[in-house]
Amino acid sequence: MDLKPLLSHIELELQRQVSRLAAPRTKSFHDMLTYHMGWTGDGAGPEATGKRIRPLMVLLTTASCDTDWHLALPAAAAVELVHNFSLVHDDIQDNSPKRRGRDTTWTKWGAPMAINVGDALFVISNQAIISLKVNYPAETVVKVAEILHNTCLDLTRGQFLDMSYEERTDLKVEDYWPMISGKTAALLSACCQIGAILGSADEEREEAYRSFGHYLGLAFQVQDDILGIWGDEKVIGKSVASDLVEGKNSLPVLVGLGKRGRFAERWAQGPINPEEVEEVARLLAGEGGYGEAKEASIQMTDMAINSLREADPHGEAGEALFELTNKLLNRNQ
Amino acid sequence: MDLKPLLSHIELELQRQVSRLAAPRTKSFHDMLTYHMGWTGDGAGPEATGKRIRPLMVLLTTASCDTDWHLALPAAAAVELVHNFSLVHDDIQDNSPKRRGRDTTWTKWGAPMAINVGDALFVISNQAIISLKVNYPAETVVKVAEILHNTCLDLTRGQFLDMSYEERTDLKVEDYWPMISGKTAALLSACCQIGAILGSADEEREEAYRSFGHYLGLAFQVQDDILGIWGDEKVIGKSVASDLVEGKNSLPVLVGLGKRGRFAERWAQGPINPEEVEEVARLLAGEGGYGEAKEASIQMTDMAINSLREADPHGEAGEALFELTNKLLNRNQ
Repeated sequence: MDLKPLLSHIELELQRQVSRLAAPRTKSFHDMLTYHMGWTGDGAGPEATGKRIRPLMVLLTTASCDTDWHLALPAAAAVELVHNFSLVHDDIQDNSPKRRGRDTTWTKWGAPMAINVGDALFVISNQAIISLKVNYPAETVVKVAEILHNTCLDLTRGQFLDMSYEERTDLKVEDYWPMISGKTAALLSACCQIGAILGSADEEREEAYRSFGHYLGLAFQVQDDILGIWGDEKVIGKSVASDLVEGKNSLPVLVGLGKRGRFAERWAQGPINPEEVEEVARLLAGEGGYGEAKEASIQMTDMAINSLREADPHGEAGEALFELTNKLLNRNQ
Repeated sequence: MDLKPLLSHIELELQRQVSRLAAPRTKSFHDMLTYHMGWTGDGAGPEATGKRIRPLMVLLTTASCDTDWHLALPAAAAVELVHNFSLVHDDIQDNSPKRRGRDTTWTKWGAPMAINVGDALFVISNQAIISLKVNYPAETVVKVAEILHNTCLDLTRGQFLDMSYEERTDLKVEDYWPMISGKTAALLSACCQIGAILGSADEEREEAYRSFGHYLGLAFQVQDDILGIWGDEKVIGKSVASDLVEGKNSLPVLVGLGKRGRFAERWAQGPINPEEVEEVARLLAGEGGYGEAKEASIQMTDMAINSLREADPHGEAGEALFELTNKLLNRNQ
């Protein structure tokens, strides 16, 4: 299936929603949002917008339930706006100067303005969801809005856990799943569930789609954690490993801490320096960090694929969902 | 009308909504929200919660349309949560260490956590509005949610204007109204409009209530601006005047700047020191800052009262609305 028409409609719908701030008096406020969304300013373009995976998931799910995906566009925009609201606030919280190679919103306009930019993106996501009322009965709008809001509370929970973990030294593998369930899996899960509802799927299929999105999110995050320490095997000789230097509480690290071995000892001694990264990564792999995370990644991937099969997605859009999943999870089909 | 039962039900409904975060894993996150809401921690109590004016307006409006105010409680909680979300983010943006005599959320837990606390309060306000579905048909929930979201976008617009004005030296009286329309009037206007909808008022009355809230907000803010420079006349000898020291772009200041007289000259030279406050306040009054702001305040108050009369609020709740308005606007009935 050619995803280009979906992607261009997603972009148009996002621009339409964000244009609520395009009045003369708030022009420079609008400019901040369009900069963050990747449409304007230095480095604007496809590289800056990100892949729009979440809205694609919404539209493909709706289409795979034999419903015209155009109807779901406001919901697709809403989930992408939620994602971007959380990125803007994340960047302030993490003190990150760059995102996708560009200055972050707070670097350009300061934290106070950036907090407000994030808030506005969040508000517009709420407005986008309500604008579904043009295509759907009010009962459906309320149901979908409720799912989106519950998901947003999960996001704040995940964010809280992530930040509070920074100061903890007693973390276990069991602490990992609630955090990434909130930070990564909740929104992908909502995308698929909302797409199914807007495709008029019955409850059983809706649940299968929801479950697919959930496990896809978990699998994706675990894989990202592995790549963040050992890099992409396909890119030979490349060691990314910045996650160890940043002290990120990723799954491999929590596995390693649980072993109370030499890795845990080194981790407790303070930040890892770039020069020792390779050695510490080898140490962690030797104590099971790589293998157990890989195992979890395979398990979550299987769960995702099984849930998607259960959802029984139809037609070209259904195939595209399998393809996208394989691409995201780096699998050969 | 005895407002105590309304106030205690508002508090209970707020606590019920915020308890969504009361799970063991997010207990300390929940604690941050209950601290900000004034229920827990140092200085907790009625002084810390604020007056809950906004939810009171919702309930009194609904009741004055001959509808049981209990039905509107989720909406009352929602508007108060929106207000509090904006306070938490405001305090970070303004770098304010204290609110109502207590440490602000960011002072206690740092800005990253406080951003997330504000986000969570905002999410819970969305969830509260959707929970109206227990008492009202989905069409009503969608209508009310849309009004609340539009209002929140107005809040971010007002916040943007307020922050961007800090760097401008060419401000005019015309720049004042859009800012306070967003920052103060939008939410009060939404409270009354939503209360009217939940009271099944017809469109004409709904519009009158909306207009009442709008002008009440404007009148209240202008009055607050006057008190912020010249203090309360009833409290003899007390000069507050901190607004001049803080360089706040209040209505009297913008009136004074428009005169391009000695006040404008002094203002352009940089921050006002506490020692010269009395003199500068006298200068500003002499150039029309007090008189014109007072005139605007009287005008807005009249508009508010006229709109409320037009809305024709019934019974004890209607009387309470007039009383509350008079109290807020410092008028003798």
